This record gives sequence, structure tokens and C-alpha cells, in this order.
Amino acid sequence: MANKASVPKGTRDFKPDELVKRRFIFSNIESVYRKFGFVEIETPSMENIETLTGKYGDEGDKLLFRILNSGDYLAKADKDALQANDSQKLSASIAEKGLRYDLTVPFARFVVQHRNEIQFPFKRYQLQAVWRADRPQKGRYREFYQCDADIIGSKSLLNEAELVQIIDEVFKRLNIRVEIRLNNRKILQGLAEIIKEEDKFMAITIAIDKLDKIGIEKVREELSSSGLKTEAIDKIHEVLSFEGSLIEKISFMKNLFNESEIGMEGLAEMQKLYEYLSEFKLLNEIHFDLTLARGLNYYTGTIIEVVAKDVSMGSICGGGRYDDLTSIFGLNDVSGVGISFGADRIYDVMQELDVFGEIPQQDTKLLIINFGEEDEKYALKALSKLRANNIASEIYPDTAKIKKQMNYTNARGIPFVIMAGESERIDQKYTLKNMESGEQQLLSLEEIINLFK
Amino acid sequence: MANKASVPKGTRDFKPDELVKRRFIFSNIESVYRKFGFVEIETPSMENIETLTGKYGDEGDKLLFRILNSGDYLAKADKDALQANDSQKLSASIAEKGLRYDLTVPFARFVVQHRNEIQFPFKRYQLQAVWRADRPQKGRYREFYQCDADIIGSKSLLNEAELVQIIDEVFKRLNIRVEIRLNNRKILQGLAEIIKEEDKFMAITIAIDKLDKIGIEKVREELSSSGLKTEAIDKIHEVLSFEGSLIEKISFMKNLFNESEIGMEGLAEMQKLYEYLSEFKLLNEIHFDLTLARGLNYYTGTIIEVVAKDVSMGSICGGGRYDDLTSIFGLNDVSGVGISFGADRIYDVMQELDVFGEIPQQDTKLLIINFGEEDEKYALKALSKLRANNIASEIYPDTAKIKKQMNYTNARGIPFVIMAGESERIDQKYTLKNMESGEQQLLSLEEIINLFK
Repeated sequence: MANKASVPKGTRDFKPDELVKRRFIFSNIESVYRKFGFVEIETPSMENIETLTGKYGDEGDKLLFRILNSGDYLAKADKDALQANDSQKLSASIAEKGLRYDLTVPFARFVVQHRNEIQFPFKRYQLQAVWRADRPQKGRYREFYQCDADIIGSKSLLNEAELVQIIDEVFKRLNIRVEIRLNNRKILQGLAEIIKEEDKFMAITIAIDKLDKIGIEKVREELSSSGLKTEAIDKIHEVLSFEGSLIEKISFMKNLFNESEIGMEGLAEMQKLYEYLSEFKLLNEIHFDLTLARGLNYYTGTIIEVVAKDVSMGSICGGGRYDDLTSIFGLNDVSGVGISFGADRIYDVMQELDVFGEIPQQDTKLLIINFGEEDEKYALKALSKLRANNIASEIYPDTAKIKKQMNYTNARGIPFVIMAGESERIDQKYTLKNMESGEQQLLSLEEIINLFK
Repeated sequence: MANKASVPKGTRDFKPDELVKRRFIFSNIESVYRKFGFVEIETPSMENIETLTGKYGDEGDKLLFRILNSGDYLAKADKDALQANDSQKLSASIAEKGLRYDLTVPFARFVVQHRNEIQFPFKRYQLQAVWRADRPQKGRYREFYQCDADIIGSKSLLNEAELVQIIDEVFKRLNIRVEIRLNNRKILQGLAEIIKEEDKFMAITIAIDKLDKIGIEKVREELSSSGLKTEAIDKIHEVLSFEGSLIEKISFMKNLFNESEIGMEGLAEMQKLYEYLSEFKLLNEIHFDLTLARGLNYYTGTIIEVVAKDVSMGSICGGGRYDDLTSIFGLNDVSGVGISFGADRIYDVMQELDVFGEIPQQDTKLLIINFGEEDEKYALKALSKLRANNIASEIYPDTAKIKKQMNYTNARGIPFVIMAGESERIDQKYTLKNMESGEQQLLSLEEIINLFK
């Protein structure tokens, strides 16, 4: 029986019309990265499983795709785990490799492994697939692409400012209006400090992160059930409800935060970033969002998140500063900052906004109609010359009815055909037909080449 | 304890200097494919395991990377296989997905699945990674790239001829001298027919495939131990030892093969291909090699293999015609022909031949030296203008010693620096330094932009 032709849940084929649009996104991101001096690396699709586990929280560990060991893997399997029917425990002994879950952890591993072969500050970009065994839904796939840029080995906030510039330029090129949200983990820590609830930092952050979705009253309830006193909740409420520009917010908070060293540090960083972004004329694009808390796992300073203004899709780009990422692999005191564009969601946003415009599926400018053996030689002569002049062109490979060949040309979106039958051959000319207008011209090969060159 | 920073056996990181060379190979292959009218598709890295198993022989099944099911996979595991400690049998129940082993089978699956959305003849290319759990050695990796082009839905030998043209153009662009070997499975079948040993076709083919390596006497021995009579072996020997051009070989064999319909068909196909290649002026590049038998699993007509003339690396490109590939997935009577470039081996060949030339790791033309807070603003103004003019440029993000910043510029291979301290700022000029010659010029920003635009 024939196998069913289907792909695994959450994965996709990309047909030519889809792929040219994806390439359009990738190439815009890549060319902006390169313009800002980033260089490209690639890491393997699979990593040793210890490189991945424990880096993304318990939830992340569950979402890792693990690769079954080759050969007689049961010979080395953990017998106790087998006995106990413990799938999770057994995995460690029968699946020693896993698929990349993001590009950040493999990059940290790369930096440590190749520390003597690269120049710091190291500015790298990387556009590769990642895999997560997540439940597929709108905007969420099991195989998807991340497009990351990181600067590692520099603490300057100029790096953050350049990343915001990159975000701005990429989305302007892609015709997506976005809001770039900024925050700083140190400010969140400062907030916990000034209400004397440092040890409830996580609970506070998780609660205020929900402000957009559940509103201030529910946030207050959640803070209260975490054990915060009314006075502390009022203070948070006051901070969250302050309206004003980025710089107004900063000066308002400086008054509140003067007892928190870390909080003041976060505010100073935000102010410095503000100055750079003012220099780069980007103040209208950004928004200081105190509720922003993404990626608390490893971010230690600036936090960045980007959402589309005209489509509801969640975050389409995000990032931040991490002071300690490479220490997992034994290299301490190397600060880094990076961003990641989610190409698949950006694709979905652009589809929804209908901003791709016309991107041709192929380069082919001309298709030569195949009139059969007799005329083929004459047609092939033209084909060789066209290609020698770097004009993308094709011949219909079979002798089929003209109508079929014309339909094929139309369906492929090829703009011109060349017809070369007996009469053309005798004249040493070719008939060029514009598929859109229907207009035909009898031309020499040189004339055709000059038209398309 | 810190994790060890390493990658799984047989996989590799690509540093910027390596990746630009790989991109050079990919982009040349891609641009030739596009010039010939091929359009790009991508398929998922993972396929349902039934899509892959049984397609590459028993050996291939063993080399598949299988992905462990998520969650409590032991709950649905094959209890008998577990009881019997049978790793191979257990796999089917605990690993329902596998990593792509080549691009051909996923392409066949794609064609069947999307048959109503594509135009036949369908000319697609695909450059993606494949994975094989093979023992790593020189030129053999566990993750490597294939660069395939196939035409499906056309029986014309013009397709084969165009693929040979593509091979020729790609390797000329890459500066690799190659021999393009051609054969036809029907000719091999004809050979078995004329010696009345059709049922020993496989054994004969496997034996003569080794001629290059073991010599004619050993081939004779192997044929003899397969049960062939001396007379039959003599006939094979006669065919193998005939020296001559492609066309001489064809006419010699036509005399021998006139009793074998399939053999004559193969020779007619070879002759037609010869005529096309003669039209394309490629006769000097090709070699009719009767011992060539690669990929017997699915090839049914023309067989193509390419080896580098100046490096011993095995096949760096190969392909052929398959009449029946999509029938595995339920679509009959769709003939196809394709080729696949092995990018990783091509890389190794080019390294060995030292033909990459100078490929810069980054686009950056200019690095602006960072003199600290006071001068940064003035420097940033230049940076913004340069980038607005699409000149790839950077600023050193930290205030470091000039020497350190210069060393960094040199190590990165960036050709120019801009210095902008107090004196430049007062003059509203910038000092441009050529890192190679050491030459310095005091210029206005406009002058610098005009130099690099």
C-alpha cells in the first residue's frame, strides 16, 4: 500500500510562492544585520542533550525534541527507569542528543568553545530553524525560524541602542508598523526593593506582566494573594499608573527609587539608552513598559519586545541583556545583549496585512515553446545564448500542444514566450510574445538579448 | 559544574570565515538553478517515520535519526519489543518521526501531497540539511547539505541534458575541474539480457561497479563466484574493455545489444542525450562509464555522477532518472530526473584546491573609533549618515584604548577606520585611515560617503 503523503503535526512544506516571501523576510533581516557589522555563524541542528536541558525551565525540558540513540540503544538503557516505566528518566540514557530549542544557548556554547578563534566584542547573527514539541496553534509551529543578532563582550548601552535601530529599520523595510517596548530587569528589582519585598520579586513581576490582559484590579488581587500588604500594592499601583513620556517616567521613578541601588542603576541605564535613541531619532518608536518581563530566566538588564500595531499576533521580536549566559559553559564575566526576530510570525503578520507586494516565484523571463525535433535545435541555440548572457530562460522540455505550453507559461507567471518554427528559422529570427499584452514581435536573437539584458 | 562546550560527533559549527565560503557555494548553485528556471521549495526537517523507512534499503533504515515521541512515550510502547529488549522493533512505537535522510524522498512526498497546487513539468530546487547516523570520516558528516534540482512530469532527455549543463556551469563557476560520468540503467539491464543472466542483474552491476577499485581480474572472479559462465564473463569483459568516444561506444554496443529491447532503448537514450550535449558543446566534459551504477534503488534510466579531477574525494554530485518515485505515495506514471550537489564535499575539495580566493567575512567598510562620551555624539552622527547611505559601518561600542580598537579592526579585516576627536569636531571633519596602507586623510562626511557609495 502506498504511504500517506503528509507531514508531522506542526511542521510545514513551503511551496515556491510561500518560500519567496519567506526569503524576502530573511534577506531584509540579514542585510540590515550585515549593514550594522554582524557576521554570520551556524550551529548544528542537534546538540548534546546536556547542552540543552535545564536551560529553558522544566516546561522547556519537556518541549525538547530528543533524538533516539542509534543501534542497540536498549543495551545501555537505564534499567531502573525501564522497570519503573519512567519515560522522562529513561530519555537521558536512550536519547543523548536533542534538536536546537533556540539560538541563544547554542550561541553561548559556541562562544565558549571558540573563544580563542573569535574577536570580542563579537557581533554575530544566525538565521536557523529551532524545534519545540509545543501544541501547534495560530502563530505557533513545531519547526520555526529564529533570526538572532547578539553582541557579546561589551557592556555599552550603545549596543542596545543599535539593536533598537536594527528593529526599526527591519520593520520599516517590511512595511509593518510596530511598537518597540523597553524595560530593564533592574528597575523591576528596584520596585521590589522599595516596597521591601525583594524575595517576592518573581511573583510581583509575573503579576504585573498580566496588566494588559487582566487589568489593574485583578493585578492588585494577585499581588495581595502573594502576601503583599496594601501599602506595597498601592505603591506598585502608583508606579504602574503614572502616565508620561519615557523621560518623564524616568524622573518620576528616580524620586521613588533613591533608596534602591539596583533600581537607580536600572533607571540610569534606561536614561542612557534614551539618550542614544534620541540621538538616533527613535523616541517616537519606543515605549517604556514597566510591565514587560519576558525571558526572566536569563535577562539581567534591558528587556526588549516588539509587537505589531495593526495585527494581534503577540511578540514578533524580542531580546535583552544577559550578564551571565556563557558561565553555564565555564566562561564568566562576558556580558551580552541580543534580539531575535520570529520569521514565521512576521510572515503571518505580513500575510494578514497584505504587505508582501508582488514577488515573482522565479527569475525566468522567457520560455521557448517547443515545436518538436525539427525546430528544437534552432530553439536550443537561442536558449544557450540567452543563458550565456545570464538571462534566466527555459524551454518547454516536451513536444506538447501549443495551448498546453502557453497555459503552463501563464500558470508559472513567466512574462514572455519565444516561438521559433520553420518560418522564423528561415528568417533567422524569433517571435517574442508578451504574455500579458499578447503583443508579438519578430526579432533577431541579438535584439531579444538586448531587450532583456 | 559547567557543561562542556562541545557538539555531537559528526556535526560542526560554522564560524564566519567558513560560512561565507559555504554561502559562496550555495549561492552559485542556486543562481545557476534559477537561471535554468527552477523554483525553490523547502520541506520540514522531520518526516513521519513511515515516509522514510524502507526507502533507502536496510542500511539506510539503520542510519535514520529517529525522534523520540514527546511525553510519556513508554505508555504506548510495544510491550513485546520491550520484553524482548529489541531496540529496532521498539523504535517504531516510541519514535514516530525521523530526520530527513535525503531530499529526494521528501520531494516525492511533496509532489504527491501538493499535486493540485503545482505545475507539471515541475522544476524545483531545494538546498537543505540532511542527517545520517553514519560513522564520521573524511568528507562524511552526520549533518550535511544537499543541493537538489529535479524536473518531474517530463520524460524528455532534454532535461538530462540541461542538468549536465547545470553541473558544468556550477563547477566552472567554482573553479573545480570535473569529470561528468554518464550511464543508463537500461544499458546495464541490456548487458544482463544479452548474456541471458537477467536475474543476476544486481550481482553483475555490483561487481562491475568495482572495476576502478579492484581491476578486471578481480571483477571476473566476483562474476564467476556469482555463478556466471566464462562465456558470459568474456562478453562483459569485451564490453568493459572497449575504448572509444561516447558515440563509438554506442555504435559498438548497438551491434551487441540488438537482441535486447531494453538495452537498445538505453542506447537510444544515450545517443539522444549525446546529441543534446553535442548541441550544448559539452562532449569534452562527459564520459560514458558503463561501470557506473549508483543509486540503483530508484534510478530507472540515465545515471549521472561527478568526480573532481584534481582531488580524490569520491562523488561530489550525482543523480539520474526515476520513473516511479512518487508511486510510493500513490501517484503513478510520473517520471522525474534530478541531481544533487554535495555542498560539504565540494567545500572540502575547494579547500584542498585552494580556489576560494578572498571572501570577506563581513560587509563592514568602516569602523569608527570610540573616543568616549564627549566625542561619541559626533561619531554617531557620522554612523547614522553612513548607514542611511547603505554603507556597512560600525562604531567600537566601548571606550577602549585606541590600540585595542585598532587591533580589533585589523583582526576583523575591516579596511578603514574613522577617527573623530576634538580637533576633527571643531573642523566638522573626520579622519579616514586606510588600515592597509596606513594613509590618513582629513575629509568631510560627504566626501567619505562619496568615496564608499
